[in-house]
Amino acid sequence: MTSSTINFDVTTLPIMTIYDFPKGPYPTRVRIALAEKNLQSRVEFVMVDLYKGEHKRPEFISGKNYSGTLPVLELNDGTCIAECTAITGYLDTLDGAPMLTGRTPLEKGVIHMMSKRAELELLDAISVYFHHATPGLGPDVELYQNSEWGFRQRDKALRGMRYFNDVLKNQPFVAGDAFSMADITLIGGLVFASIVKLPVPAECEALLAWYTRMWERPSVKNQPAFA
Amino acid sequence: MTSSTINFDVTTLPIMTIYDFPKGPYPTRVRIALAEKNLQSRVEFVMVDLYKGEHKRPEFISGKNYSGTLPVLELNDGTCIAECTAITGYLDTLDGAPMLTGRTPLEKGVIHMMSKRAELELLDAISVYFHHATPGLGPDVELYQNSEWGFRQRDKALRGMRYFNDVLKNQPFVAGDAFSMADITLIGGLVFASIVKLPVPAECEALLAWYTRMWERPSVKNQPAFA
Repeated sequence: MTSSTINFDVTTLPIMTIYDFPKGPYPTRVRIALAEKNLQSRVEFVMVDLYKGEHKRPEFISGKNYSGTLPVLELNDGTCIAECTAITGYLDTLDGAPMLTGRTPLEKGVIHMMSKRAELELLDAISVYFHHATPGLGPDVELYQNSEWGFRQRDKALRGMRYFNDVLKNQPFVAGDAFSMADITLIGGLVFASIVKLPVPAECEALLAWYTRMWERPSVKNQPAFA
Repeated sequence: MTSSTINFDVTTLPIMTIYDFPKGPYPTRVRIALAEKNLQSRVEFVMVDLYKGEHKRPEFISGKNYSGTLPVLELNDGTCIAECTAITGYLDTLDGAPMLTGRTPLEKGVIHMMSKRAELELLDAISVYFHHATPGLGPDVELYQNSEWGFRQRDKALRGMRYFNDVLKNQPFVAGDAFSMADITLIGGLVFASIVKLPVPAECEALLAWYTRMWERPSVKNQPAFA
């Protein structure tokens, strides 16, 4: 640990803005990372109402995030950083002491892979199911749906649960021996699974036991998504 | 720059294996990163024939990459790192002198976001189009297709080209003033656009000019994808 790390004082950081939907699975990932890094006091949250489609309005698309998704981190110079993993990578390296995205090249590589895999195989798949094969955010927001594709992605997510169950039979955390962004992404996936009422199969005992352990972390259990 | 960086000698690195399809848009991203980092001599490439579906075989899924995609980096202890951005993050930090993924938290955040955006809005969208609304890898590999979804993604990719054209009107590289992984991801997108015969609209002059400049880089122009 370098001296700059030891001396790092979060209260010297300027206040950042996060465009947020407090119970959303993706925003929850960034909220957990903020709590793990003890950075909550440096953030002002601005609510963007997904159910009103505020994230799809032209001023949000052009001014905050072309992809029209939440959350978005806005720095006090106006720079907007979208995409959960970009935001959490930024937050995790602010103090020079990354703890969620890995310290060594190998840790970084494995955590990055497993977090992306938790997106591809579970979180993003459930998101597609939600937006395409359920009422999603309602008819005013879901202007195009492809239900066949949505159901395919639901089935992919169920396979993903079994895959992560197998992973967690052999190691305590998603990317190995320590809590990381990969765990946070998988938590996001299970938050979304709960929203769409897609329960983890009972035989996925290792996954369920891991989730119970995750809930014991203050950074997780105090999130609005679990209120 | 630390003394460990100055003294870093790539020939001390053990030989790594990359499961690869030389002309593939995703493998090309890792190949460009290797060339930028001057690490080619440390890699042994193993061809996995996408058109024979070798990446979907059970032994590849269970042994190399659950998601069944290329490329995959295998270290000499058997650790497999899949997902392009995880691989390139690993490679870029091996020498302690990241140049493709950013040095400061802000650079890291913006490069990560723009690379992810180039995936979401262009590269991955074209991949879905290829696999779902064209013959893709052929009937033996493409066991399920959803052509309506594929055409939606093609249209998304065309909008993505216009977005990146706007970005490149104002800055020389995708993530700002320096070449980065975000440029490499966008190059991957245009490689795939060429494969599916989806030309960049002629009015996207800034995007086309940027691509011409990218082709001048030895790391880019010598790739099998451009042979």
